[in-house]
Amino acid sequence: MNMNKSKILSYWVIGKHAVVGALNNPDRVNYRLCITEENYEKIKTNNIKLEPEIMSRTEISKLTNNNIHQGLAVLTKPLEKRNLNNYLNHNKNKKKIFIILDQINDSQNVGAIIRSAAAFSASGIIILDKNSPNENSALSKAAAGTLEIMPLFRVSNLVQTIKLLKQNNFWTVGLEAKAIKTLKEINETSKIFSENVAIVMGSESKGIRNLVKDNCDMTAKINIKNSIESLNVSVALAISLYEINRS
Amino acid sequence: MNMNKSKILSYWVIGKHAVVGALNNPDRVNYRLCITEENYEKIKTNNIKLEPEIMSRTEISKLTNNNIHQGLAVLTKPLEKRNLNNYLNHNKNKKKIFIILDQINDSQNVGAIIRSAAAFSASGIIILDKNSPNENSALSKAAAGTLEIMPLFRVSNLVQTIKLLKQNNFWTVGLEAKAIKTLKEINETSKIFSENVAIVMGSESKGIRNLVKDNCDMTAKINIKNSIESLNVSVALAISLYEINRS
Repeated sequence: MNMNKSKILSYWVIGKHAVVGALNNPDRVNYRLCITEENYEKIKTNNIKLEPEIMSRTEISKLTNNNIHQGLAVLTKPLEKRNLNNYLNHNKNKKKIFIILDQINDSQNVGAIIRSAAAFSASGIIILDKNSPNENSALSKAAAGTLEIMPLFRVSNLVQTIKLLKQNNFWTVGLEAKAIKTLKEINETSKIFSENVAIVMGSESKGIRNLVKDNCDMTAKINIKNSIESLNVSVALAISLYEINRS
Repeated sequence: MNMNKSKILSYWVIGKHAVVGALNNPDRVNYRLCITEENYEKIKTNNIKLEPEIMSRTEISKLTNNNIHQGLAVLTKPLEKRNLNNYLNHNKNKKKIFIILDQINDSQNVGAIIRSAAAFSASGIIILDKNSPNENSALSKAAAGTLEIMPLFRVSNLVQTIKLLKQNNFWTVGLEAKAIKTLKEINETSKIFSENVAIVMGSESKGIRNLVKDNCDMTAKINIKNSIESLNVSVALAISLYEINRS
């Protein structure tokens, strides 16, 4: 076990959507709510179980060590880890879309991916236990409250995970700029996207690792202008989910 | 004239893609290149006209006042303003896609929009002169080099601009969560997206202002899960451009 990770006992959730989401999640343990008077008037209709600490924006900035908190912050405990095997065993008859992130370590991108995954009804996001961000302020803010509803599964080995998904009747599709077929072509010439699908995404700089890619059923790309190197990874993921749901 | 804006004579472009883009743009005036020895070895094959100042990452952080520079930074002059009327007069026979941003003031979102606009071959982005970010480090980094090739037009009045675009044979489509038709439905039932199109986007918190919306030919939405409030504005824009180009 990574000792550094086990030390993260709490962090600040900041920003309106993320804070309201954290307060409304019955599975989340919150320790403190620091909020401006004006913001508290707006959100107090929610079922808030914490005694609010009314503060100025400057005080919240000092406490949370940032200035993008929009005047409200919740000190919270990271959510309990989830088990992918359990999830799959309990959701056998439901059509599922998973997103697998191979070494994407930018918190804001992971948060943005969580937000789009929620918007396009994905079932969950699988990330590596190492080389992936823990729950933190930037991730939670970019997820805009959807961290509370989108299951995150941390796994130690993506090849094993892909094999597990295949055993559970998933198609695994690696998203890659060099792929021959586009997602649109796959959508128009097969019924893959009406079945269980896992989309595998690599980081913008390194792409999907070869061994992970070799274990995917196929690779696919999104058509973009030739002279442009790539899309932002969270944008590419959102477009993939849009195409999968479009059929 | 806004005196504050006229004072911005230079800013730091940071991050690999943005710096390489800035160095390779013949229309850009660059003043300083501060770079680690390791990075200079990687990028020196480009036609760099500046004498590099080799520095440590810590020194670049102090100079640029951030730690997301990836070991390279260019002090640069903002690009010259462009004139929308001139552009339209010189590109009459080309099919054009424009993006109009109504009071979107988050630099990172605007930068991300520029990047997706470039990937999906948009002709330009129209933003308000007031209430919109100037060229800056965060915007330029999120644009990942595409700020150099994607024309930005600053205008003072969006209603007048929409009228001008209509005179130039544009369909103007306001993107709005409450719209009745989806972009997909418009794509499947009309030929609008094969003609000149301008997509109008509002901010995530406020949406498109009423007067601007009333001047659009139509509104459209992207289908997302009912319980999710919205997509990130740069993600929504990217999906809109994907759908427009998909036909």
